[in-house]
Amino acid sequence: MPLIGLLLPDGFEVCSLTPVAVFEAANAELGEPFYDVRVLSDRGGRITGSFGVAIATQALGGEAYDTLLVAGAPDVVSTTPLAQARLRMVAARSGRVASLRLGAFALAEAGLLDGRRATTHATHAHALQQRFPAIRVDADCLFTQEDPVWTSAGMTAGVDLALHLIERDVGRGCVQRVAARLMIPMLRSGAHPQHSAALDLQATSDRVATALEFARNNLRRKLTVEDLAEVARLSPRQFSRIFRNQTGCSPARAIEKLRLEAACVLIRQGRLPFETIAGETGFGDEERMRRAFTRDVGQAPRAIRRMAQMARAA
Amino acid sequence: MPLIGLLLPDGFEVCSLTPVAVFEAANAELGEPFYDVRVLSDRGGRITGSFGVAIATQALGGEAYDTLLVAGAPDVVSTTPLAQARLRMVAARSGRVASLRLGAFALAEAGLLDGRRATTHATHAHALQQRFPAIRVDADCLFTQEDPVWTSAGMTAGVDLALHLIERDVGRGCVQRVAARLMIPMLRSGAHPQHSAALDLQATSDRVATALEFARNNLRRKLTVEDLAEVARLSPRQFSRIFRNQTGCSPARAIEKLRLEAACVLIRQGRLPFETIAGETGFGDEERMRRAFTRDVGQAPRAIRRMAQMARAA
Repeated sequence: MPLIGLLLPDGFEVCSLTPVAVFEAANAELGEPFYDVRVLSDRGGRITGSFGVAIATQALGGEAYDTLLVAGAPDVVSTTPLAQARLRMVAARSGRVASLRLGAFALAEAGLLDGRRATTHATHAHALQQRFPAIRVDADCLFTQEDPVWTSAGMTAGVDLALHLIERDVGRGCVQRVAARLMIPMLRSGAHPQHSAALDLQATSDRVATALEFARNNLRRKLTVEDLAEVARLSPRQFSRIFRNQTGCSPARAIEKLRLEAACVLIRQGRLPFETIAGETGFGDEERMRRAFTRDVGQAPRAIRRMAQMARAA
Repeated sequence: MPLIGLLLPDGFEVCSLTPVAVFEAANAELGEPFYDVRVLSDRGGRITGSFGVAIATQALGGEAYDTLLVAGAPDVVSTTPLAQARLRMVAARSGRVASLRLGAFALAEAGLLDGRRATTHATHAHALQQRFPAIRVDADCLFTQEDPVWTSAGMTAGVDLALHLIERDVGRGCVQRVAARLMIPMLRSGAHPQHSAALDLQATSDRVATALEFARNNLRRKLTVEDLAEVARLSPRQFSRIFRNQTGCSPARAIEKLRLEAACVLIRQGRLPFETIAGETGFGDEERMRRAFTRDVGQAPRAIRRMAQMARAA
C-alpha cells in the first residue's frame, strides 16, 4: 500500500490538501484502500492553516514514504536547520518527494533542489531563483519531474502532479477514470503553462458580453463606443478591435441590431404607440425607427404590426 | 466580512475542503481577509475524514452564515431528525446554502430541496431521484442555482460553485483573477456537463498513442491491426476508425512508416548489414526493405547509406 505523507507548515494553505483528495479519488476508483495517507508537521500535533482550518498531524519522524508531499503557507516561511536535516533524512528514505507551491522553498532550504530544475507559483519564482542560484527555476510550468524530486506550482497544479504520480503507480487508464470521477476537464502535463490562454479569452469574451448586456439594458440612452469600452474596462480602440473579432461587426452596428430586436418585440405586441417604442429603444423618433426597419428588416413597423395582428387573429 | 460555514459529516471526503481553498485564494487576491470560514460538524469537536484526515470543528449552532456549504462522505450517510431540524434552522438564517457531492442527500433529508432542481455526483443522481421524488434531479450538470439553495456535483464542481458564489459577491473581474491564481484552465458554468468530452478525446488519443508506442517498440514482430487494437483496448473496427481519424492513415500504413523511419536511422549509421536491419525493423528480408524504400523514399538503402557516408566525410 503506497504511503503518502503530506508535510504541512504552520499556517498551511487549505489548497495543500487538494492533492490528497486525488489520492482519495484513486482509492474510490480502484475499489480498495490502495493509497494510505499521513498528515505530518515538523513537530506533530494540531496545526492551524492560514484560513483557520485546524488539523491533526503526526510528527515527521523516521518513517519512509512512497511519496512525501511538502506544502507551503501563503508566504515563504523559513525552516530551522533541525527541520531541514529531518526533511533531508526522510526525503532520502522516501521514494519520491514533491513540493506544492511555496513548499519548494522548504525543499530548497534542505538543499534538495540544488542542481535541479524546479518550479513554484509564478508569483514567487523570481524570489526562489534569487535566493537559490543553484536551482534551475522554471517560472512557467505546472510541475517538474526529476526523479526522485518533483516540484509543482501548487493550487490546481497539485492536482495535475498527483494525477501524474498516480499514473506512474497504476497506469494511464486508471488515471483517466480518476480524472473523470473528479470531473477534471483535461489532463495537463507538467510543461503546461501556469497561465491559461482559454481563461484569458473567456475574460475578453466576458468583457464584450458585459458591454452587450449593458447596451441591452440601456438602449434608450445614446450609446457611444466610449461608453461601452468603459463598461468593458478596455480602451475604445481595444474594445472596437476585440468586439469586431468576436462578433463580426462594429459596436455601432451591434447596437442598431439590439435596437431593432427590442423594437420588433414591442411593435408585434401592439400595445405601445410607435413614437413611444422609438423613444424607449433609442431610435429617438418614429421616422428614424421606420427608416431603420425599412433598410434592415425590409418592412416598415406598420406592416410588421399588421402581420402580427393577422397571425393572432388566425 | 462574508462568513462561510462548511458542514462536514463524520468520514467526510477530503475534496470537501477544496471550495474553501477557493475562498482562501479570493482573500489572497483581494489582499484582505474578506471571507471568514468556520469548519462545522453536527456536534462539533474533532472529526475524521474518510482518508484519515482529522480536523477540528465547531458545532452547528444558532449562527447565521452568508454561505453554508454542506459536504458529504464517500457514501450516503443518513442524518438524524434532530440534525435535520438544526440544518433547516441554520439554512433559514443563512444567505445561501450549497451542497457538495453527496451533501445533496443531507439537504434533501432536511426537506430543503423539495420542488427544486438539484444535482449530485452522477454516480448517485439516480438514487437521489428515487428517494426524493419531489426533487427535479439534474444528473448531468456541475451545479444548480436556485437561490437561496445551490447544489453541486462535488469534486472539481465544488471549485466551479465556489467561483460563482464569489462572482456574486465581488464581480466577474475578480473571479477571473482568482481563477488565474488557482491556474484553473477555464471558468465553467453550472450547466457544464459532468463528463468532459476533451478528457474522453485525450483518452482515445492516448489509446492510439499507446498502440503506436507498442508498435515502435515491437517493429520486429508481425504487427496486425488486431494486435494493436488489443493494446489500445478497442475493437479492431473501432481502432481502425479512430486511428484513421487521428492520424489520417491506416494502421498498416502507419506501421510501414515507422519501419521506414527506424530502418533509415540504422542504414545511415552504417554499422549493421542490410539483412540484419531488415530483420530488426520487421521488413523480413533485404529485398522487401529495398522495395519499400524505393517506393516510399525514392532511394534504395544502398544510396541512402552512401549519401550518409559522404556527408560524414565532408
